[in-house]
Amino acid sequence: MARKLKVAVSGLGRMGARHAINYLEKTPRAELVAACDPGAEALSWARSRLAPAGVTIYETFDEMMQHPDIEAVIVAGITTEHAPQSIKAIRAGKHVLCEKPLSTDLAISQEVFDVAKSRPDLKVMTGFSRRFDQSYRNARKKVDSGAIGRPVVFRSQTCDKYRDDDYFIGYSKTSGSIFVDASVHDIDLALWMFGQDSIVKSVSAVGTCARYQGLKQYGDVDNGVGIVEFWGGKIAYFYACRMMAVGQHDMTEVIGNHGKVTINANPAHDLVEHHEPTGIRREIGQTYWDRFEPAFIRESNEFTEAVLDDKPLPFHLSGAIKSMQIGSALQEALRTGEKLFFNEIGESVIGPGLAARL
Amino acid sequence: MARKLKVAVSGLGRMGARHAINYLEKTPRAELVAACDPGAEALSWARSRLAPAGVTIYETFDEMMQHPDIEAVIVAGITTEHAPQSIKAIRAGKHVLCEKPLSTDLAISQEVFDVAKSRPDLKVMTGFSRRFDQSYRNARKKVDSGAIGRPVVFRSQTCDKYRDDDYFIGYSKTSGSIFVDASVHDIDLALWMFGQDSIVKSVSAVGTCARYQGLKQYGDVDNGVGIVEFWGGKIAYFYACRMMAVGQHDMTEVIGNHGKVTINANPAHDLVEHHEPTGIRREIGQTYWDRFEPAFIRESNEFTEAVLDDKPLPFHLSGAIKSMQIGSALQEALRTGEKLFFNEIGESVIGPGLAARL
Amino acid sequence: MARKLKVAVSGLGRMGARHAINYLEKTPRAELVAACDPGAEALSWARSRLAPAGVTIYETFDEMMQHPDIEAVIVAGITTEHAPQSIKAIRAGKHVLCEKPLSTDLAISQEVFDVAKSRPDLKVMTGFSRRFDQSYRNARKKVDSGAIGRPVVFRSQTCDKYRDDDYFIGYSKTSGSIFVDASVHDIDLALWMFGQDSIVKSVSAVGTCARYQGLKQYGDVDNGVGIVEFWGGKIAYFYACRMMAVGQHDMTEVIGNHGKVTINANPAHDLVEHHEPTGIRREIGQTYWDRFEPAFIRESNEFTEAVLDDKPLPFHLSGAIKSMQIGSALQEALRTGEKLFFNEIGESVIGPGLAARL
Amino acid sequence: MARKLKVAVSGLGRMGARHAINYLEKTPRAELVAACDPGAEALSWARSRLAPAGVTIYETFDEMMQHPDIEAVIVAGITTEHAPQSIKAIRAGKHVLCEKPLSTDLAISQEVFDVAKSRPDLKVMTGFSRRFDQSYRNARKKVDSGAIGRPVVFRSQTCDKYRDDDYFIGYSKTSGSIFVDASVHDIDLALWMFGQDSIVKSVSAVGTCARYQGLKQYGDVDNGVGIVEFWGGKIAYFYACRMMAVGQHDMTEVIGNHGKVTINANPAHDLVEHHEPTGIRREIGQTYWDRFEPAFIRESNEFTEAVLDDKPLPFHLSGAIKSMQIGSALQEALRTGEKLFFNEIGESVIGPGLAARL
Repeated sequence: MARKLKVAVSGLGRMGARHAINYLEKTPRAELVAACDPGAEALSWARSRLAPAGVTIYETFDEMMQHPDIEAVIVAGITTEHAPQSIKAIRAGKHVLCEKPLSTDLAISQEVFDVAKSRPDLKVMTGFSRRFDQSYRNARKKVDSGAIGRPVVFRSQTCDKYRDDDYFIGYSKTSGSIFVDASVHDIDLALWMFGQDSIVKSVSAVGTCARYQGLKQYGDVDNGVGIVEFWGGKIAYFYACRMMAVGQHDMTEVIGNHGKVTINANPAHDLVEHHEPTGIRREIGQTYWDRFEPAFIRESNEFTEAVLDDKPLPFHLSGAIKSMQIGSALQEALRTGEKLFFNEIGESVIGPGLAARL
Repeated sequence: MARKLKVAVSGLGRMGARHAINYLEKTPRAELVAACDPGAEALSWARSRLAPAGVTIYETFDEMMQHPDIEAVIVAGITTEHAPQSIKAIRAGKHVLCEKPLSTDLAISQEVFDVAKSRPDLKVMTGFSRRFDQSYRNARKKVDSGAIGRPVVFRSQTCDKYRDDDYFIGYSKTSGSIFVDASVHDIDLALWMFGQDSIVKSVSAVGTCARYQGLKQYGDVDNGVGIVEFWGGKIAYFYACRMMAVGQHDMTEVIGNHGKVTINANPAHDLVEHHEPTGIRREIGQTYWDRFEPAFIRESNEFTEAVLDDKPLPFHLSGAIKSMQIGSALQEALRTGEKLFFNEIGESVIGPGLAARL
Repeated sequence: MARKLKVAVSGLGRMGARHAINYLEKTPRAELVAACDPGAEALSWARSRLAPAGVTIYETFDEMMQHPDIEAVIVAGITTEHAPQSIKAIRAGKHVLCEKPLSTDLAISQEVFDVAKSRPDLKVMTGFSRRFDQSYRNARKKVDSGAIGRPVVFRSQTCDKYRDDDYFIGYSKTSGSIFVDASVHDIDLALWMFGQDSIVKSVSAVGTCARYQGLKQYGDVDNGVGIVEFWGGKIAYFYACRMMAVGQHDMTEVIGNHGKVTINANPAHDLVEHHEPTGIRREIGQTYWDRFEPAFIRESNEFTEAVLDDKPLPFHLSGAIKSMQIGSALQEALRTGEKLFFNEIGESVIGPGLAARL
Repeated sequence: MARKLKVAVSGLGRMGARHAINYLEKTPRAELVAACDPGAEALSWARSRLAPAGVTIYETFDEMMQHPDIEAVIVAGITTEHAPQSIKAIRAGKHVLCEKPLSTDLAISQEVFDVAKSRPDLKVMTGFSRRFDQSYRNARKKVDSGAIGRPVVFRSQTCDKYRDDDYFIGYSKTSGSIFVDASVHDIDLALWMFGQDSIVKSVSAVGTCARYQGLKQYGDVDNGVGIVEFWGGKIAYFYACRMMAVGQHDMTEVIGNHGKVTINANPAHDLVEHHEPTGIRREIGQTYWDRFEPAFIRESNEFTEAVLDDKPLPFHLSGAIKSMQIGSALQEALRTGEKLFFNEIGESVIGPGLAARL
């Protein structure tokens, strides 16, 4: 029998449970051997759904790490545990796939990065699912081929469907606010299309609470627009929203000097069109899972393959740090109201207007 | 001042009134000088809308024809008057644009054709509005360019929006039933794309009354599907419907051995898309006028130009006769339930099955 | 560990190999234990791809059937072996999923059906993949909900991308010609939407060889159009094509008296749109696998689930027989040129025209 | 005969000539009596195209203004003449439709406004063509109906097709740069959707020269992105581009807290779709005229109607001033690199960061 990667999943909430199922059933070269979660509900689910398939269930991460066979750990619990568990796992010699963000704190994220760097023999990746989406890959291939010329302007949005409850307000408390939590995906894509070595020149942002006033207490908004200008004449602009009526509408366009490519400009959750007295109607996915489920499955498979075959991961951990830095800059620009400026080696500088006055 | 064509419109019902307005206001090289209708309502409209602009209004066609300046007549009244008025006008030396059909009776249509033939100095045209539609013209140009290779299969539909009243039942009484009234447009387009000299090999048709049972008394249906096979390996198939929920959806596709072109596969009455909790919705036009108004205006202008500059008309009257013949064959195939067969010179023949038995 | 269904796959050509991989890697509740194929190339592939995962490989079906653990057999080899192997497997007490068609010969198909009927304890299914497609299921759900009213007109097409070689000619030799091989899927969908108990009233068909003249020797065509009229005022019409330029374009529309639903009217193989100097372009899938891969995976999983949990299969074997009968009638209508007629208990009768003459 | 408005057109360049034709042939209630242009080519065109229809042609504006019948003047010559001619015409008691912009200089624009204000008996309008576009009007109606809730975020773009020559560089010299020339349309739409009384809170902008380096000499760019934040929690963001590959792609979306409406998200210049081996392709319009011709015709008709029937114009001249002010602020934000701030009565203020330092 071909060797399978022995995987453990930490955290069995909504996202972690999906990871567990993906490694259990949809990643042929992996074997899910262990899973842990401190919560009663998650444990109960794991005992009925995972245990019968031979997965050992634990109540704590530390206990789980004693399992003798684990080769790789999927860190998918609460955000504040992402960094500590990733670091422990790396130090224990395990490969790690950590859900994004590593941390909402840049210094802590950097620490994970540094620990990972000290173990070049291990594969450490953070989960930017859109990088595994077939449409984004096809678009990237087109951009790479030179078909749109030089990419110059990048626009991307992450728009969640509205909810009638207060979910987003509670979520904002720990997620690190809209640009850091949602736009970070779009920022990552901008770097993917423009080049990971792109250097930010300026950042500006505005936002508003149109539906969830409770977000204000966390300095957060439910609609945010930001512009990131890069040295070398490249512009990315972003829109993040927590109240889209129609569903989850994440979309991107890359404009080059000879063409444009769009990804998901016209969303649809199936191939059905409804011809009704009121018009022709298409339904769209309601959640990020509706949109990105196949990408998460591909992520599991490619992470497994990278470890088993010692292949390079599709992107480097440093990119996650950089995207977080830019997301944080947007957040600061939103919070302070000020436009932020950076020099060509990435250092924060004062703007031309202030410089003229001083 | 440049010379303008002096035009008269006969019949000021829904269609005729639109023609009158088009010649009055949207055909710069034409001047509407006269109009007639026997109905009180139409006359009242004409007196308030047309007369102030200098148009003389008549109650009868014959009186109107005494107007000394008329050069061209638009015949747009009830179907049974199409042929007699067209013939009178031609015999009086007027150019004629006659609404389709010339007649629901093939022999009478032929008579108009023969009279027109006797006056080659006059422009006589029947109103196949789709021939003037920009999208159909663009598609035709593409087909002509060879871009789809040799056209082989043609599909076209004329679908009216349903109505809650009995309109279609009354209409059926005089319109000549669904294949003759509605599909005739699609048939005309098939000949345009395949070549006017295409010869029918076989015809079959089925139909059903799904919404308007009253159509049965006239041998008519509210949904009809027919196939017309042409000698030389070309196939046209048609769908006509009187109960489309979404609106007027007339569409066409032409399939060549190297490509395909569609016309109005995705209808929309404007450029607006509605993102709503139930999905993304586009509205479409509700009537043929919503869809073809610009084509009717172009028709008026090109007819006027053809007369003033003695240019050839964009298509020949014989095509209208041929389309009617094919429409009538579909209707007969529907009525009898039988497939009809024709030889390579267009004569009706018995089918191979019957031939084998006899 | 949860019990897994032990599956064998017979035939490892293009389709069989895909089935093997699906049962090996994408059907969590199944275990692929055996596979067979008489061909050297397929065997070589199986030995390197399947054997390392613990699958026993055989050169003959009969040898494979000696494997002690097999509970279910997937019959996916050449068409002429579908029926004999299915019968053998059923008689050996195995559950069977047989690729379509059971046979191109109606009598042989009926025999499989009869054998299956004698073993009601076994699950025997034929592979109509579109029944497992999410979009078709969503559309069916909408039709079932009454949202479009009563389904009246059904249009469906199966269009393969053209090929520059002679593949389709060789394929035609054994596949049973275009209506039986391709349209049978559309026919099955018509029955799904109209009701499995729908009774055919008349059948007519035409066809042409526009690209592959070699098809003529097998009485086949590369473009076929057919109409199937059902008793009760329902109409289905079909288009099958072997030369579509753009790719695989299988689409369907169901028209009810209060609405319409379309499936894949606007195909796209990803969510990317290309804005180029020549226009806005979407790419579409090139093969049926591009379109239906997820449906095949769902088929494997649902077949497995039906066996393990003794649930009813999503559709009955009799439907496959019925679809084949209708496909054969279309083929005969094409071959003879005649329209075929049937009475309300499904018996072939002479048409009204001939009846009048006799 | 019904009274017709006697109109004169000043400037017969590309735009002026179109206005002249619209008033001559497509505005039934108007009569084009005079036209002027100082250029030989334009005069030659006017003499052959307009004069035969009874239009008197002049070489200078002042001479034309001596024509005794003129009631309204269309000012459509070079931008620097917009204001002086409009002022002269108003002072001469003529109704005026002035092409946008009144002036690239805010003070001069204000002067036109003041002069117009002194003659409330005259209709003075500036040509924001999108206000007359049917799709924008339908969208506005939907927004007004409350169907999307409260409009919160507005995105709009004006994207011209690239050119292989230096046209845009020369054009930039007099047009007042990209935000003032192109985005001003989008800004006007934002005010239309958010309310004309919306007050700007902050403005930021970035830009780049990706294709036309020569624009730099005029402080202009070929790609610009800007954000305008309004007091009350409303956000508008804009993209302007001079190098779109596919054609003219002007589009808009209005996002409310309960829905979204888009205008021209999926452009197409006709209803044709091309199914080709490379995919499915739609062509789009190449120029603003391709997109907005019907809007210009409606503009002519509504302006004429407003004068003849003394109806209010569809929007007030003050809006044009306001849009220009916002466009100029974006341009300044681009030029200086700084974010600009305004208080709740619209006065320029220093930003919070600088305030903290001072």
